[in-house]
Amino acid sequence: MAGFNVRTVLVTGANRGIGLELVKQFLEKPNPPKWVFATCRDPEGERALTPAPHPHIIPKPASSTDTASIKAAATRVEEHLKGSGLNLLINNAAIGGNGTLESETLDDMSLVYTTNVTGPLLVSQAFLPLLKKAAQGSNQKGLSCSKAAIVNMSSEAGSIQNVFIWHLGQAIAYRCSKAALNMLTKCQSLGYEGDGILSIAVHPGWVQTDMGSFMVGTLLGEAPVTVDASVRGILNVLAKLSEKDNGAFVSWEGKVLPW
Amino acid sequence: MAGFNVRTVLVTGANRGIGLELVKQFLEKPNPPKWVFATCRDPEGERALTPAPHPHIIPKPASSTDTASIKAAATRVEEHLKGSGLNLLINNAAIGGNGTLESETLDDMSLVYTTNVTGPLLVSQAFLPLLKKAAQGSNQKGLSCSKAAIVNMSSEAGSIQNVFIWHLGQAIAYRCSKAALNMLTKCQSLGYEGDGILSIAVHPGWVQTDMGSFMVGTLLGEAPVTVDASVRGILNVLAKLSEKDNGAFVSWEGKVLPW
Repeated sequence: MAGFNVRTVLVTGANRGIGLELVKQFLEKPNPPKWVFATCRDPEGERALTPAPHPHIIPKPASSTDTASIKAAATRVEEHLKGSGLNLLINNAAIGGNGTLESETLDDMSLVYTTNVTGPLLVSQAFLPLLKKAAQGSNQKGLSCSKAAIVNMSSEAGSIQNVFIWHLGQAIAYRCSKAALNMLTKCQSLGYEGDGILSIAVHPGWVQTDMGSFMVGTLLGEAPVTVDASVRGILNVLAKLSEKDNGAFVSWEGKVLPW
Repeated sequence: MAGFNVRTVLVTGANRGIGLELVKQFLEKPNPPKWVFATCRDPEGERALTPAPHPHIIPKPASSTDTASIKAAATRVEEHLKGSGLNLLINNAAIGGNGTLESETLDDMSLVYTTNVTGPLLVSQAFLPLLKKAAQGSNQKGLSCSKAAIVNMSSEAGSIQNVFIWHLGQAIAYRCSKAALNMLTKCQSLGYEGDGILSIAVHPGWVQTDMGSFMVGTLLGEAPVTVDASVRGILNVLAKLSEKDNGAFVSWEGKVLPW
């Protein structure tokens, strides 16, 4: 990852699981970002960002479904950056759900969609000026995650073709939300390519997190991929992305997944 | 369509456009259904079902996003059917939208998703017992729309691969909702195959309807497909579907579309 030189990154949902590990591994890089902005709903609460305080981490309270709190977070990030841009926005915050075709309710469908699709859309809107600034300030050609990128944490469970681990859980609201997030990613790739911003949907694997276990009703630790391995894989993949990958759906192992 | 023999059909969003034309063309068939249940939000209102009253049409008020009104409609349909089942549920009710990556709001995203995805889910839940009854009462082997089927009116605008007519309008909320509806269709195909129910997502074409025009900001009539031609095509396609098509995404011309 010698060429993966991200000056500023923001990770949503950074209080645990993949989000927290992304923050940790960014900080462990030989060339860590100057700024790692880590947002979660309640940075002071029970699920606070464990490694804070750290000189590179700026915890920011932001509910990814509350437009005012997202805008406030963007304003505060902008103040820290003092005129420079944001290279990498990782829309990682999401919720699961294990409802079936028979049991899903209006409320569940709405909550999961708002968190997993509308949240990333609103966060991207708020940070777009900073992403554009990063792209404009870069002397790199083409597209890359070192220049300016939106990474949407999706799931192969949202692949309509593969319907990953259906036999273990229907998770209707979750699957529908991730298919929609993939569409959002594709739209962002078309809309922002001209601004020098890359957009990508990433499947992190079926990971040993609270969500990865809850989703399919298994015990924590039964999922096949460790958080450490998943995030190492993801960072490896992000490091190699270029304009030919814009708008794609890739796994933590770098495999292109079907929609 | 000699073999397309549907005894009972329910069409949601039947007050205009494709839904209204579906009702009309079902009634014009040489072998019309015994019952055509046509639901819309306000059957007595300005946008009432124009061809009613008709001996085969039972207008039912049902907001496809209000669980109580959906259940009430299912109960009343069941009373009419006097012990027989529902062969064909056409989830046609939907709304459009032409928001962009920058302009889409939380409220728009929620409203479009609830109407276009959660609505079909809830309607399918409510009518599932009647669909199962139709499948159980049928002596046909395999799956077909004459036996028992859920038809979800989708759109190629929801094809993540094709992103149909992107150059004419981003329509983010709409595209995301239709990608999610395609996922719902795939899930229904996996969940209900064992019950003898076929599930399919249909792209009606870019049709000369209020929605088809509004979506892309063009004048009514500029869309290339007439409502008549679209619905004739759809009925032709539905007539030929079998178990090999279960869970697919097909156009009004019978072409399989990529997710």
